[in-house]
Amino acid sequence: MALKLMTAADAMQDFLGAVERAHLDAPWSAPLMSHEPKARVVPFVWRWADIQPLIMRAGELVTPDRAVERRILRLANPGVPEKTSTHTLSTAVQLLLPGECAPAHRHSPTAIRFIIQGDGAYTTVEGEKCPMQPGDLVLTPSWTWHDHGSESAGPVVWMDGLDTPLIRSLQTMFYEPYPNDRQPVSKGVGDSLRRYGAGGLKPARATSRPDLPPIVHYPWEETHAALRRLADVDASPFDDVAMEYISPTTGGSALRTIGCWIQLIRPGIRTQAHRQTSSAVYHVFAGKGYSVVDGQRLDWGKGDFFVVPPWSWHEHANEEGEEAVLFSIQDAPVFEALGLYREEAYAENGGHQSISNVFAA
Amino acid sequence: MALKLMTAADAMQDFLGAVERAHLDAPWSAPLMSHEPKARVVPFVWRWADIQPLIMRAGELVTPDRAVERRILRLANPGVPEKTSTHTLSTAVQLLLPGECAPAHRHSPTAIRFIIQGDGAYTTVEGEKCPMQPGDLVLTPSWTWHDHGSESAGPVVWMDGLDTPLIRSLQTMFYEPYPNDRQPVSKGVGDSLRRYGAGGLKPARATSRPDLPPIVHYPWEETHAALRRLADVDASPFDDVAMEYISPTTGGSALRTIGCWIQLIRPGIRTQAHRQTSSAVYHVFAGKGYSVVDGQRLDWGKGDFFVVPPWSWHEHANEEGEEAVLFSIQDAPVFEALGLYREEAYAENGGHQSISNVFAA
Amino acid sequence: MALKLMTAADAMQDFLGAVERAHLDAPWSAPLMSHEPKARVVPFVWRWADIQPLIMRAGELVTPDRAVERRILRLANPGVPEKTSTHTLSTAVQLLLPGECAPAHRHSPTAIRFIIQGDGAYTTVEGEKCPMQPGDLVLTPSWTWHDHGSESAGPVVWMDGLDTPLIRSLQTMFYEPYPNDRQPVSKGVGDSLRRYGAGGLKPARATSRPDLPPIVHYPWEETHAALRRLADVDASPFDDVAMEYISPTTGGSALRTIGCWIQLIRPGIRTQAHRQTSSAVYHVFAGKGYSVVDGQRLDWGKGDFFVVPPWSWHEHANEEGEEAVLFSIQDAPVFEALGLYREEAYAENGGHQSISNVFAA
Amino acid sequence: MALKLMTAADAMQDFLGAVERAHLDAPWSAPLMSHEPKARVVPFVWRWADIQPLIMRAGELVTPDRAVERRILRLANPGVPEKTSTHTLSTAVQLLLPGECAPAHRHSPTAIRFIIQGDGAYTTVEGEKCPMQPGDLVLTPSWTWHDHGSESAGPVVWMDGLDTPLIRSLQTMFYEPYPNDRQPVSKGVGDSLRRYGAGGLKPARATSRPDLPPIVHYPWEETHAALRRLADVDASPFDDVAMEYISPTTGGSALRTIGCWIQLIRPGIRTQAHRQTSSAVYHVFAGKGYSVVDGQRLDWGKGDFFVVPPWSWHEHANEEGEEAVLFSIQDAPVFEALGLYREEAYAENGGHQSISNVFAA
Repeated sequence: MALKLMTAADAMQDFLGAVERAHLDAPWSAPLMSHEPKARVVPFVWRWADIQPLIMRAGELVTPDRAVERRILRLANPGVPEKTSTHTLSTAVQLLLPGECAPAHRHSPTAIRFIIQGDGAYTTVEGEKCPMQPGDLVLTPSWTWHDHGSESAGPVVWMDGLDTPLIRSLQTMFYEPYPNDRQPVSKGVGDSLRRYGAGGLKPARATSRPDLPPIVHYPWEETHAALRRLADVDASPFDDVAMEYISPTTGGSALRTIGCWIQLIRPGIRTQAHRQTSSAVYHVFAGKGYSVVDGQRLDWGKGDFFVVPPWSWHEHANEEGEEAVLFSIQDAPVFEALGLYREEAYAENGGHQSISNVFAA
Repeated sequence: MALKLMTAADAMQDFLGAVERAHLDAPWSAPLMSHEPKARVVPFVWRWADIQPLIMRAGELVTPDRAVERRILRLANPGVPEKTSTHTLSTAVQLLLPGECAPAHRHSPTAIRFIIQGDGAYTTVEGEKCPMQPGDLVLTPSWTWHDHGSESAGPVVWMDGLDTPLIRSLQTMFYEPYPNDRQPVSKGVGDSLRRYGAGGLKPARATSRPDLPPIVHYPWEETHAALRRLADVDASPFDDVAMEYISPTTGGSALRTIGCWIQLIRPGIRTQAHRQTSSAVYHVFAGKGYSVVDGQRLDWGKGDFFVVPPWSWHEHANEEGEEAVLFSIQDAPVFEALGLYREEAYAENGGHQSISNVFAA
Repeated sequence: MALKLMTAADAMQDFLGAVERAHLDAPWSAPLMSHEPKARVVPFVWRWADIQPLIMRAGELVTPDRAVERRILRLANPGVPEKTSTHTLSTAVQLLLPGECAPAHRHSPTAIRFIIQGDGAYTTVEGEKCPMQPGDLVLTPSWTWHDHGSESAGPVVWMDGLDTPLIRSLQTMFYEPYPNDRQPVSKGVGDSLRRYGAGGLKPARATSRPDLPPIVHYPWEETHAALRRLADVDASPFDDVAMEYISPTTGGSALRTIGCWIQLIRPGIRTQAHRQTSSAVYHVFAGKGYSVVDGQRLDWGKGDFFVVPPWSWHEHANEEGEEAVLFSIQDAPVFEALGLYREEAYAENGGHQSISNVFAA
Repeated sequence: MALKLMTAADAMQDFLGAVERAHLDAPWSAPLMSHEPKARVVPFVWRWADIQPLIMRAGELVTPDRAVERRILRLANPGVPEKTSTHTLSTAVQLLLPGECAPAHRHSPTAIRFIIQGDGAYTTVEGEKCPMQPGDLVLTPSWTWHDHGSESAGPVVWMDGLDTPLIRSLQTMFYEPYPNDRQPVSKGVGDSLRRYGAGGLKPARATSRPDLPPIVHYPWEETHAALRRLADVDASPFDDVAMEYISPTTGGSALRTIGCWIQLIRPGIRTQAHRQTSSAVYHVFAGKGYSVVDGQRLDWGKGDFFVVPPWSWHEHANEEGEEAVLFSIQDAPVFEALGLYREEAYAENGGHQSISNVFAA
């Protein structure tokens, strides 16, 4: 009988087989950590010209019922297999037709609505009914009861923003339907704003629920006025006239996992580039301009959406005569809470990237 | 020589003499602690009918100069030897005549101004010039540069509120004159409000100076509107419609040692009594009513001031057809910061004290 | 020419094609949210009897070099495609042979080492060299320079715990090699413990680096003594005698993304079941016992590792005469920081699950 | 009838009379604020050689009973009319003879005990009986039940430190006797230390009472060991080897109004001078040395007490061969909580004041 010599390769093969059978893993051939984040998320623009006819067509084709609770189109980043907008943020456009409603429920994901078109729809959040108009922001923080409905004569379209990708990756999804279609309305319209909407004043000795930011509805009229006032005295070299929606009882982000921003890019402004470990989805509420993201030029106009991936250089420009208004959701609060937020300014060329290509879907 | 016998009393006398010579103290004959605070501060009302002619007469008699920097009348609580309004709070009425100014300086005491009469005066706080109108509140936090002046055609009268008694008892008084009469105005009018005055929004990624509350000027128009909005949805059984001036970057008291409140006592309201370890000085900005403080009825009308001593039961009433507006300064933030704040509701008689006497100065 | 009629199905087909081409997504046929987390992570036990020979065999087969920096065997949860121990935590067993070292570097993931066998190895963390003995815990917080080496005469085996799955899902991986193999040792042995290791005392007026927990090395001798002292006075019905490694300057978790626990399961103890949204990987440092996880009995002994997935009922038992010691890493700080931590006690059957099956790999 | 002309002086006199009758005050002739704190508190040394015989003599003369609850000698600062040690801190030496006890009670002032001589006495704090030995620190935070007693065969002497001057000036004194002489002992000896005494570990998921620092007893053995360990690696140029007693659940001062420090002044050390807005009372637990306070040399030895007034330059020196140990109480937490803490280093002459005189009582 021939003697079989065991080679080194055989030995390794045997070893790796045993490792696998023991549910162990010997990851020696691949570097375990990259030197910088390699984002899967890619810069992307979704055009209102594409979205608008499709969501309207969906209104003809789909009637929401119990099985299909929402008529939404999600903005699917080509770099994200799960078809969300970034690795932590999900964005969609939703259409509500006259008389429709979404039954009351609550879930561990946090959500926001930013109204794009139509008035007469409402969201009820923990007993407060919020009638929504274009530019309004409505918050439904984690595990708060909410339901939507439309008392409008026409279609209402809004932007949904959620942290579902984060919640999924943390495997901490909870959902509960309300016993009835609608929760009772226990507060008057504008209740939270009437209590906490004044800058620099709050109800004396009142204590708000710790799980609930005290304001759930931010009307556009006040938001726009605040931007205009800030524009008179200050602007950021990176973001021009930018404000964050905050909780007046802490001074911090209104929501724990989603940062909401509103900003003006004024005529003639070109901001300097910077990057953060956080990512953002922008909606163009008004105006026209472009952003340069990692050397790629993204042109945008009213109704468009675009994504700035994590750790991507980005700067904004408005070469028109009208001011542009950008609403965005950002995952920065997550990175700050975990000690993972970083920010860096683009040092070269006066803060401006050179443009290597122009985005075309 | 006669033998002298030492008695027990002699021995004690000898001992106490030795104790005193050693700068020691044997406090055995008196209880060291009382069971509840025995306030020296007493409930008191100062009448506008008294104050107004005297401050105007002071305008004829006194010209402020370097030696006498302010034309003020301090509200001297009869129970406080140091002639301040409570043991922690000093209140005064100040008159500025056309063209007068108070040179720039800063000090460790924190101060507030609440405008009573006249417009055209201003306070400049850390480079921000605040034009003041009746009902406006202007803050000069500890160690911030400030100067005052009047560009008015007529007399301007305001309320000064300071924590000087506290600062004195802590022996931590610092004072520094500015090199010139006026500090340079480096910010536009309304700068802090333009940045931080919006309820629920703040400049994104901006960091304000930690030693400076981001708002230094609270105009009456906004304050009154906030009170009216709150009145639509909520009220306190003890304070009716009460709001606290806050810092929008922390959600807490605007100042670290003085709480500032504004409240409506609406027609027909009689609040329930409660008491706190903190004390308060109230100014009647509008209307007419009375408070019951430890069983004593204090009637008040427009322009009057009154004191609620620490740990004194107090309730407010408005039997007129017009709403009353009370502005107050309180030392509650001090007690809260040191873990000494307590509050108690009056349990008997539906929360109402019986009135044993009526205040007359 | 034949007329072609478009059916409803055709129309939907056309629509969905257009949606896809526009990088949109119409997720109407699947429910978007589950009612409770469906963990992919599964309960699992890795046996020391399997791990020990394989890691020693790896010592014969593999020589770490630049390309393969570590001789580790990762504990790959069968439910996690990425071969980590839970969805947020990566665990491995690492072998260092005499004279070997791992070059200095830093990375955004946070790591811990818990020593299993051998002494004479060390980790240097930000200039502090920590000589490690069995039961010692060494922290390398996010973005801190660290390097390892062995001055031992024999093999050293430790447990690595990292938050790499979390960092990867947040796409925020940063890595930087140190210019040299070893960073300079700038502090004496035990520096951080000598400053901050005393319970109830800290250096007066010292300020520690905010990015660095002040203690980086927790020796077993002190840890065990602390457990024994706590056992004299208190125990948890769910975790028996359990302590968390904390930062003495905040009183909170030593690390922002990984909670480290040490616990005794004393002879005769059977704890009650509870569940959390967080997950945990346990290492059996001493003794023998079992845990019941979602009805499955996991038997464990010295050297074994086991996983408790998120939102899984779990209870521990020790039927032996010797105390068992469990070290664990947990992702609870992440859930707490984001407002997503929940906990629930098992209400039925005296807190004890019925056992449906016994784990066998 | 003769016409009387009113002069300016008359007018002012009339005016000032009216001001006084209206309980107003026109403080125009005196500056309202000084440029720096003018401390009433003076630097002072109380000699153990004076204190010891007097407190022992008090043991012969005085039997504590209900009316005279304590046999104490207060250290009366000559600059403080109220006979306390500083404007915020009261210090006393207390003697307990065998079998004596002080009945259980609680009060809003916070107190500490630091044992000077004798063992066998105890303090019970919220059900935890703390047997006390020389060098031990025992805390009785605001409004916690406590009683003292002696099971010793000989006299026991300790230092009492309280914030009564602060509490008095805030008019917030509350006191309540316990229904019985002693509160029930509900916890084992060393309970709080067994739970929270380990550096870097705390009971997992336990929540301590927010009004109670989790450790109430700091034994000298551990304290001294901690000082010796710190001395190996670090020292302050101003305070040599100084540690603060902290709460392990917050990392901050153990008490909200009194900072407790323990420090070594090692042989040959002369620290540099600095000053703070806070004040301190030092007790010399061991050794011999001197401090220079505002240019005055204060020599001190074992058992002595001395005061550093607010905003006074101070430095410490030990020219002996033995280490000196200083225990002190400080009011710094009050100034920090109110935003009034300031610190300044003495810049000239290498940080050393010139000595202008030597203290002699």
